[in-house]
Amino acid sequence: MAEREPYWTSSISEITPETVFVRGYRLEDLIGTSFTASVFLLIKGRLPSPQEAAVLDAILTGVLDYGLEKTGTAAARYVVSSNPSMQAALATAILAAGDYALAPENSARFITDTHAAWVAAGRPDMKAFAEQIVADARRAKLRIPGFGHAVFKKKDPRSEILRSIAVDNQLWGEPAQLYEAVHQSFIQLPGREDFPINDVGMLAAISVAVGFTPQEATALAVLGTLPGIVAHVSEEYATGKIGRVIPAADVAYDVPRRDYAEDLSAAGWAADDGI
Amino acid sequence: MAEREPYWTSSISEITPETVFVRGYRLEDLIGTSFTASVFLLIKGRLPSPQEAAVLDAILTGVLDYGLEKTGTAAARYVVSSNPSMQAALATAILAAGDYALAPENSARFITDTHAAWVAAGRPDMKAFAEQIVADARRAKLRIPGFGHAVFKKKDPRSEILRSIAVDNQLWGEPAQLYEAVHQSFIQLPGREDFPINDVGMLAAISVAVGFTPQEATALAVLGTLPGIVAHVSEEYATGKIGRVIPAADVAYDVPRRDYAEDLSAAGWAADDGI
Amino acid sequence: MAEREPYWTSSISEITPETVFVRGYRLEDLIGTSFTASVFLLIKGRLPSPQEAAVLDAILTGVLDYGLEKTGTAAARYVVSSNPSMQAALATAILAAGDYALAPENSARFITDTHAAWVAAGRPDMKAFAEQIVADARRAKLRIPGFGHAVFKKKDPRSEILRSIAVDNQLWGEPAQLYEAVHQSFIQLPGREDFPINDVGMLAAISVAVGFTPQEATALAVLGTLPGIVAHVSEEYATGKIGRVIPAADVAYDVPRRDYAEDLSAAGWAADDGI
Amino acid sequence: MAEREPYWTSSISEITPETVFVRGYRLEDLIGTSFTASVFLLIKGRLPSPQEAAVLDAILTGVLDYGLEKTGTAAARYVVSSNPSMQAALATAILAAGDYALAPENSARFITDTHAAWVAAGRPDMKAFAEQIVADARRAKLRIPGFGHAVFKKKDPRSEILRSIAVDNQLWGEPAQLYEAVHQSFIQLPGREDFPINDVGMLAAISVAVGFTPQEATALAVLGTLPGIVAHVSEEYATGKIGRVIPAADVAYDVPRRDYAEDLSAAGWAADDGI
Repeated sequence: MAEREPYWTSSISEITPETVFVRGYRLEDLIGTSFTASVFLLIKGRLPSPQEAAVLDAILTGVLDYGLEKTGTAAARYVVSSNPSMQAALATAILAAGDYALAPENSARFITDTHAAWVAAGRPDMKAFAEQIVADARRAKLRIPGFGHAVFKKKDPRSEILRSIAVDNQLWGEPAQLYEAVHQSFIQLPGREDFPINDVGMLAAISVAVGFTPQEATALAVLGTLPGIVAHVSEEYATGKIGRVIPAADVAYDVPRRDYAEDLSAAGWAADDGI
Repeated sequence: MAEREPYWTSSISEITPETVFVRGYRLEDLIGTSFTASVFLLIKGRLPSPQEAAVLDAILTGVLDYGLEKTGTAAARYVVSSNPSMQAALATAILAAGDYALAPENSARFITDTHAAWVAAGRPDMKAFAEQIVADARRAKLRIPGFGHAVFKKKDPRSEILRSIAVDNQLWGEPAQLYEAVHQSFIQLPGREDFPINDVGMLAAISVAVGFTPQEATALAVLGTLPGIVAHVSEEYATGKIGRVIPAADVAYDVPRRDYAEDLSAAGWAADDGI
Repeated sequence: MAEREPYWTSSISEITPETVFVRGYRLEDLIGTSFTASVFLLIKGRLPSPQEAAVLDAILTGVLDYGLEKTGTAAARYVVSSNPSMQAALATAILAAGDYALAPENSARFITDTHAAWVAAGRPDMKAFAEQIVADARRAKLRIPGFGHAVFKKKDPRSEILRSIAVDNQLWGEPAQLYEAVHQSFIQLPGREDFPINDVGMLAAISVAVGFTPQEATALAVLGTLPGIVAHVSEEYATGKIGRVIPAADVAYDVPRRDYAEDLSAAGWAADDGI
Repeated sequence: MAEREPYWTSSISEITPETVFVRGYRLEDLIGTSFTASVFLLIKGRLPSPQEAAVLDAILTGVLDYGLEKTGTAAARYVVSSNPSMQAALATAILAAGDYALAPENSARFITDTHAAWVAAGRPDMKAFAEQIVADARRAKLRIPGFGHAVFKKKDPRSEILRSIAVDNQLWGEPAQLYEAVHQSFIQLPGREDFPINDVGMLAAISVAVGFTPQEATALAVLGTLPGIVAHVSEEYATGKIGRVIPAADVAYDVPRRDYAEDLSAAGWAADDGI
């Protein structure tokens, strides 16, 4: 009888009777090293250089927490107020990351795609190329991801630091430079003067520079906010409050009053039949 | 070479080249029958009687929706305001069910355990047995689950209907009777006059009467609220709002201002070492 | 002092001291009616006609269960084997719905967009319009969603029943007709003869016919499979197994053995510095 | 008109027009510092000492990855094979943490409760007290959490390293000492010689030593495994496989074949009535 072909393959870690080999290293060698280095090792499959570790630390600390003005934080606190489970809260916070928050995925894809197009075009003048991209996007009414912020108008203080750390560690590179050229062209548009590269856009640029995929960029952004979620969950537990609601004063209810029997008949249901 | 023992076994459904057999029936026979009957069939493994189907409909429609005063609804709306994914919203709403909302599991376990103890004791006088349970719980400072509601004081209108449907369909039975006896004894306690059996307690009693396990009771309660979550998600999409926050006026922030360098040094970090 | 504008508005349900009004009806009037009708009421905001209720039942029973060959079922059983929480299992199963399973969203969007384009074009000959769509998609190498199935080649038995129920209830309509015309044109392509409209495509067509949005179509498809997930969770609990793994015989591990100290040095870390 | 009392309070972070204050520090001061230190700062509300940071690194790197023998990893790979969303995969992996995997919560609660009881008893001889605890647990047939492992019999190599790092940094302390005394007494029981303190038990002991709550201990254990999940998701994407199933050869299906019309009648449904 022929042996079945294994349905799965994996090259991340392997368990032996003595230990676990993680990306080739014995787990005992890794326990106690910096978590940031382990994040890099697990995802990229090799140890980071000191420069890569430094920039990854910047990525992971780029957002941290944002009061109760992050959707995932609000959602997580509602959830644990009725289901006091840390796991449920963390999962909820992660599910709030998406097109409109904490997901550099779209920006990172824009950056890699734009760069690939620029390379394919034979590396033409970056400024002119960027102007063309902005003009094209404008004509197609496509939003360029990663620009603008509700609070930070002229410059996003977080983005500036993130950028300088990447530059200082020689991990900026072409894709990020092109993204900046696109941004420079973008803010020439009327009414767009106050659109800095925001935190999500900058996290995307740096994540691409270090070599992460768009989805991995989202994972890293999310990972960096989980300690804050833990803090909010503990703070919520400490209140002793149960079953948080959206306060009645914050909601305008507009629910009519209707006649059930009448409407049932109007919908075509026979009287003694029932729905 | 010996064949491997299958790692999994399942008796719920099976795919053949022609069709899918669900609990033994061809899927074509089931498509278009009442969803409620299918819920019963899938979970219990047999077709319901008309009475069982009627009571299951009552269970599934026992809560439906609760404005913005359900934690799962609030959480789901926060989530989709930044991650416009129906799946993420539904998952979030489910994760909000737990010890303090929408989880009849604890009540159902109390009901089955109490009934088992009563049977094991030789089916003594129910009233006296119930009084003993309340007295024991009081002494041990244990909360009896399923009694009391924030809005409905004297009686919970939902519970009354649920109960009458179960009684009318001869699906009330001993465990539910004993639970009611416990409740009767409970409201004799000073300050407990206004504690009706609430919706969760009643859903638990009926779910046990129809033969569902405590965890299945929670699943049914949750299932019954998902259509409302879908409605709230669609309503949220329709607003076009992006990134809901907890309004600043609703939060008292109490965050001090500290000196980083000073505190770093105080925590034992050398100046040129960095954290 | 000016009163704050309410941050939220909702017209789904409202709680009063006496009862809950759901889409305008007293909850007591709704408890015990068919769950399917309540699903319709909650999402669409009005009572269904008997025809609409019948087709919604078909939608909700269109898939039901699929052995252990549905990703969400497998994932849910893994989850509860280590975290015995019904809520976690249900949430997990929902998160498995997406681009490649159980999400009629894409198909429904294709159907509504195609129909809108056809209407905008002045309702030209449907067959010719459909042929153009297939030709365009082929040229742009775009996949038309909802065609083909791994097991069911010539016809999908589920789709046929779903279609006939919709037709019998006069809820087929133009968008679904156009989708069928597109399908007819599609299977003329070489090598595409055996691509029936699959269950997801058909659920999309019917959901659109009844008036649901693409995201709501996904919600309904997911909802219809949750009873099966409950059954699988109960079956998994009953095994008493803890911590399911992917059996070693099913995995080919390809993890090298490396020297940590050596690689650390090669990555640029000083010996006494550590990572 | 009286101002409303804020419904929420928070002391974790606060947004001002210029920056975000996180636990009192300007975010710009924190960006680029070690992520581990930020994890500590967010959760505990103060900067860690170098010793605390070192032990937290050990906690976060204590598990890392475990091939395809971790339920959360398997579940996450199934999920992304049909819903290619990094967020869905991470949320799923987190939901797999619970009573039987990756949740030091129970062990941590046992450790803090046992220690509190020992303190309340006037700090009696630790060995005798531990023996009493083991005897009591045995009589009550209660499982003491955190002992024993499926693969590692004599000693768990991960636990040994974790312990030594905590001891070296003077963060072991009384609760952990008492837990070890309980373990020493436990392995005297017949048939329990090969039950080392496993990774979850050791993570619990160290997390308590550093001052984290039981739920926070679970959060840290989960956090430490997320980079591995990211790696598995990227590996799964790279396969290009869609819709993973549990291979048919791994399942023994035991689904009977039944007659729908016959059973419907037997269940009490009239022929022309339908279910």
